[in-house]
Amino acid sequence: MLIDHDQRRAELAAAVWKVIQRKGVTAVSLRAVAAEAGLSTGSLRHVFPAKADLLAFSMQLVHQRFSARAEKHNTEQNPDLMAWLCELLPLDDERRLEMDVNLALFAEGGTSPQALHMRESTATGVHEVCRHALRHPGIRPHLRSDLDLSWEIPRLAALIDGLAFQLQARTALLPPDLAVRILRDHTDALRAN
Amino acid sequence: MLIDHDQRRAELAAAVWKVIQRKGVTAVSLRAVAAEAGLSTGSLRHVFPAKADLLAFSMQLVHQRFSARAEKHNTEQNPDLMAWLCELLPLDDERRLEMDVNLALFAEGGTSPQALHMRESTATGVHEVCRHALRHPGIRPHLRSDLDLSWEIPRLAALIDGLAFQLQARTALLPPDLAVRILRDHTDALRAN
Repeated sequence: MLIDHDQRRAELAAAVWKVIQRKGVTAVSLRAVAAEAGLSTGSLRHVFPAKADLLAFSMQLVHQRFSARAEKHNTEQNPDLMAWLCELLPLDDERRLEMDVNLALFAEGGTSPQALHMRESTATGVHEVCRHALRHPGIRPHLRSDLDLSWEIPRLAALIDGLAFQLQARTALLPPDLAVRILRDHTDALRAN
Repeated sequence: MLIDHDQRRAELAAAVWKVIQRKGVTAVSLRAVAAEAGLSTGSLRHVFPAKADLLAFSMQLVHQRFSARAEKHNTEQNPDLMAWLCELLPLDDERRLEMDVNLALFAEGGTSPQALHMRESTATGVHEVCRHALRHPGIRPHLRSDLDLSWEIPRLAALIDGLAFQLQARTALLPPDLAVRILRDHTDALRAN
């Protein structure tokens, strides 16, 4: 029963993503999402009473998917730092879609406490991955011993967020291979010789 | 007559910004903007036939305001590099509002050619400021002569976009003074000794 409920919620979140991707976040409404999921608006309201609940849950799910992917590296003994950090860049269709949903919901931030919380959790998520990666016992010993991680973590998080943002615009100014080279150059400078 | 028309358009764009700031981009509709501006929906349609036109014009205006502010530094003989680049960071209410509008419209990207164009022009604008700044005859001679600007410009643009994005989330992880210190550290490393 609980599983069915969770699965229904996940299906509805997927319908939200589809609407966002195809028509933009301004097109998200209970009616549009119900139609996308093949449900009546009444049934949808039974699970998510208001649009804000639906949006918040959709973002949570993006964060969960993303965290699960990043956490994989955290459990490895000798994780590859670049592979780990590249999870944060929209370099394939799955991550581009996640980034679109994330941006759409981030852009709603500032309009309500719930929306602001979504914005904070997006910003915090990137920091956490950087923190876990730079402090990982399979990675930290290979970095310069004089690094101040309380400085390096926000610096790395900002660079990654900016690369992700620019990549999502798909301009010729930052093709994916250049973004990866910039990130690699940054992490190489953190390594002990 | 033309001036009146332009002024009306600017007033309507300001009404769009207010709606976005207070209720999020999902709340923008011809009806909501007309109400905010104290007009009938019919009068609004006379100026902007569709919501997409209204959003596109609002973003153009954000870019114009921003470019005018950045261009000021470009016309100085010895511009201050940090002051120039800090125009790109949401460090005061005006720039936070612009950033909110920008993010909201950026988030719509990918859903139509017009929306994609807005996304591209946001990403491109940051690159252009970085390019003008690093190549400025009052700044370039003070930078390391071995710098490859085709590498440094996208690297700087990505860092700035990421700092702006993180600042807009207003978390304790990146307070404004830390963002400015990270940017200063980055530009210091570009300078000739």
